[in-house]
Amino acid sequence: MTLDVTVWNENVHERESESVAERYPDGIHGAIAEGIETQLSDVSVRTATLEEPDHGLDEATLEGTDVLVWWSHCANDEVSDAVADRVVDRVHEGMGFVPVHSGKNSKPFKRLMGTTCNIKYRHGGDTERVWVSDPGHPIADGLPESFEIPETEMYGEPYDVPEPDRTVFVSWFEGGEVFRSGICYRRGRGRIFAFRPGHEEYPILFQEEVRQVLANAVRWAAPTEGAEAVYGEVDPSHRRDD
Amino acid sequence: MTLDVTVWNENVHERESESVAERYPDGIHGAIAEGIETQLSDVSVRTATLEEPDHGLDEATLEGTDVLVWWSHCANDEVSDAVADRVVDRVHEGMGFVPVHSGKNSKPFKRLMGTTCNIKYRHGGDTERVWVSDPGHPIADGLPESFEIPETEMYGEPYDVPEPDRTVFVSWFEGGEVFRSGICYRRGRGRIFAFRPGHEEYPILFQEEVRQVLANAVRWAAPTEGAEAVYGEVDPSHRRDD
Amino acid sequence: MTLDVTVWNENVHERESESVAERYPDGIHGAIAEGIETQLSDVSVRTATLEEPDHGLDEATLEGTDVLVWWSHCANDEVSDAVADRVVDRVHEGMGFVPVHSGKNSKPFKRLMGTTCNIKYRHGGDTERVWVSDPGHPIADGLPESFEIPETEMYGEPYDVPEPDRTVFVSWFEGGEVFRSGICYRRGRGRIFAFRPGHEEYPILFQEEVRQVLANAVRWAAPTEGAEAVYGEVDPSHRRDD
Amino acid sequence: MTLDVTVWNENVHERESESVAERYPDGIHGAIAEGIETQLSDVSVRTATLEEPDHGLDEATLEGTDVLVWWSHCANDEVSDAVADRVVDRVHEGMGFVPVHSGKNSKPFKRLMGTTCNIKYRHGGDTERVWVSDPGHPIADGLPESFEIPETEMYGEPYDVPEPDRTVFVSWFEGGEVFRSGICYRRGRGRIFAFRPGHEEYPILFQEEVRQVLANAVRWAAPTEGAEAVYGEVDPSHRRDD
Repeated sequence: MTLDVTVWNENVHERESESVAERYPDGIHGAIAEGIETQLSDVSVRTATLEEPDHGLDEATLEGTDVLVWWSHCANDEVSDAVADRVVDRVHEGMGFVPVHSGKNSKPFKRLMGTTCNIKYRHGGDTERVWVSDPGHPIADGLPESFEIPETEMYGEPYDVPEPDRTVFVSWFEGGEVFRSGICYRRGRGRIFAFRPGHEEYPILFQEEVRQVLANAVRWAAPTEGAEAVYGEVDPSHRRDD
Repeated sequence: MTLDVTVWNENVHERESESVAERYPDGIHGAIAEGIETQLSDVSVRTATLEEPDHGLDEATLEGTDVLVWWSHCANDEVSDAVADRVVDRVHEGMGFVPVHSGKNSKPFKRLMGTTCNIKYRHGGDTERVWVSDPGHPIADGLPESFEIPETEMYGEPYDVPEPDRTVFVSWFEGGEVFRSGICYRRGRGRIFAFRPGHEEYPILFQEEVRQVLANAVRWAAPTEGAEAVYGEVDPSHRRDD
Repeated sequence: MTLDVTVWNENVHERESESVAERYPDGIHGAIAEGIETQLSDVSVRTATLEEPDHGLDEATLEGTDVLVWWSHCANDEVSDAVADRVVDRVHEGMGFVPVHSGKNSKPFKRLMGTTCNIKYRHGGDTERVWVSDPGHPIADGLPESFEIPETEMYGEPYDVPEPDRTVFVSWFEGGEVFRSGICYRRGRGRIFAFRPGHEEYPILFQEEVRQVLANAVRWAAPTEGAEAVYGEVDPSHRRDD
Repeated sequence: MTLDVTVWNENVHERESESVAERYPDGIHGAIAEGIETQLSDVSVRTATLEEPDHGLDEATLEGTDVLVWWSHCANDEVSDAVADRVVDRVHEGMGFVPVHSGKNSKPFKRLMGTTCNIKYRHGGDTERVWVSDPGHPIADGLPESFEIPETEMYGEPYDVPEPDRTVFVSWFEGGEVFRSGICYRRGRGRIFAFRPGHEEYPILFQEEVRQVLANAVRWAAPTEGAEAVYGEVDPSHRRDD
């Protein structure tokens, strides 16, 4: 069964910064999509960006999406409320959602979390070591106990999110900070995995381990069948004369 | 130290239905406030309703509120987005929030949960038995192992909320349904307890055990000091030459 | 890839009670095994019982087991500490563990939980309605929103277990009680699902929905690859001159 | 209301190592007890050690203990099974339990967790920075956003414990590792807080922030009243002719 993945990217840094454009010639979405396609055989990946009508996330596209991977940063506020709500609704129905890096500031993620999602941060190329804190989790499949990202933007605790269902990764930064870099949630029928690495100033989304994590996350976040659910006004389920 | 409690009520049924007005002559907010004042000695309780300017929840009032108890039902959509966001922001800062009965459909609760909060329901006066599923929880302090509500509106599973941090009560209904009737969360620094009982068609908010639960919840949800938190851009915490 | 399932049963009631023997002519283990084989195509099921050497759970058998389904009741104390620890160790390594009914009182389950696992109970044939409280969970795949067990032994809250990772089912009983009937945990790399239904005095383990749940649980609890994990004394991961 | 705290220490390093004896002239238990007494006014602290009869933890002592703080390391195996089980039973009844440093390897903690509690470690005096990851938690009351322990033994992830109810602290180590240094659980009615810092080779248990955390933990882990709980065989709670 083919998994339908949509990789969404605001695609702004690529158009405004020459260095980002050189680093990610097919856009950050292109790099993420390529990584998923390389890692998974039974997957169909499309991309969508902010500038498209409906940001490329019209109802039919979302309806046909099993897992939405989301990269955003400077243009989070330009995403329309209607599209953000549409994404949230689809997550409730079962679509997986994988915000990457500052996608944690996106409207859909913040609406799904109900918190500010605030962090501390620092530019300047800290080395990051991403530790697997939950080696039994499927999103860690096939990984070493830790991997290094040579240079990145730092994110530091506290991370103002609800206590995660599972904390799969915790990062160490050269400058002295730590961060829960891979955290899992469910909202309605939808699985959510927020992954920290992926800054636009470094070629992180080409790194092998990062691609492995994202591929694992796509598989983990895929919708499952589940049970029937009935909401609204109902008659009694049990009667005295049953 | 006095705890500042605000009891908010949409106060619509009381004005539109004679029978509700007779049952709750001081409004549902009045009955809840009286119950809390009776149970707790070190508390200052005020009330606020939908019809007041800012729904009675201007910034100064919320700033001075330790715990907000919230009853709403038919007028959830009439609460302004601005006030709903203000409540959410104050919860993030540490204010306790206790939605009662269909307060689970209020804008603040749904924004804090990130889910639909859907349920099934039935009018008609089912008997409900509220079981303590977590007898070690402070919100269950002083309660028997279960208590009966002779007649009520039924709420049934599935309850579309995030997996609770703690499930304190689970209800049994005569007609064959069950419901997680008392569930705990934290969002930011704020504690949230959603309590199911409290339908306007029955004198439930005068019942002793219900008042005990609400008083316990107010104490439990009160803000605590916590630690400093720094967000935004920062210098390294550790330097090689430290 | 074939899933290796071992169904363990104390197999005492079947030998001591004529009515149980008639109801479960191949033993409760036989009924469970048949149900799993009927529901899943890619599975190899063996059975083991208390009376066998090592209770049929020698190291090689456990090593070759992906998921252990466990039924026990009156002979929980006769399981040797060594075998109980061996089961616990294998769960830590990744083996799934599915205690059924009073298997919740088994040594392995209690050691994995760290609590008493106490409940209240009643014989006498209550009707039970099992509600899906988490319709998005894979253990609920394909189920209606609830199903009825016409007659059973009642289990009632409080259920003295750690707050579950996920609560998939909550049961309603005719006599007025409720119970968290399907709860999920992880310990080490191993997935645990404790399922309430399955009393020996009724043909519950032949019931279609029960078999569906157990098959779903076996698939859900199957080991996954995971990441490398290094324990013990280590050299620094990061050096100043890196 | 006075809180009765017992500080337990194996008290072996102090007797076998001159440098530890000099660093902790009143024993590690003495240093912990002094810290708690200094921080909390309404507390009565006693100490107990391995060498005493019943390890100083006879039934009357445990019965009279609200919170048990536990330090152990090299002699974890010398604690008798009977005393370990007695501690576990008291936690189930409501006694708070605060294992410090390698107290995470103690029999009571491992029995309460149901996992191996394995970690990686390194001697040699890494600098540790303890970050508050949950600034709204009462165990973090009054703390800065992080504090430094100049020299310590390192503990590194993965930490083989059940996913914590709350993760209050996450540590950064100079050598490149991270660790969930303060984690909360409940088992039965008892609250558990496992705190990482506290190695015998450094004067960590005299450090102000460490003492603040332990005092906060003692207050947080104190028993609360809770509700009645009935276990065992029961009559129906609801009757048709009620």
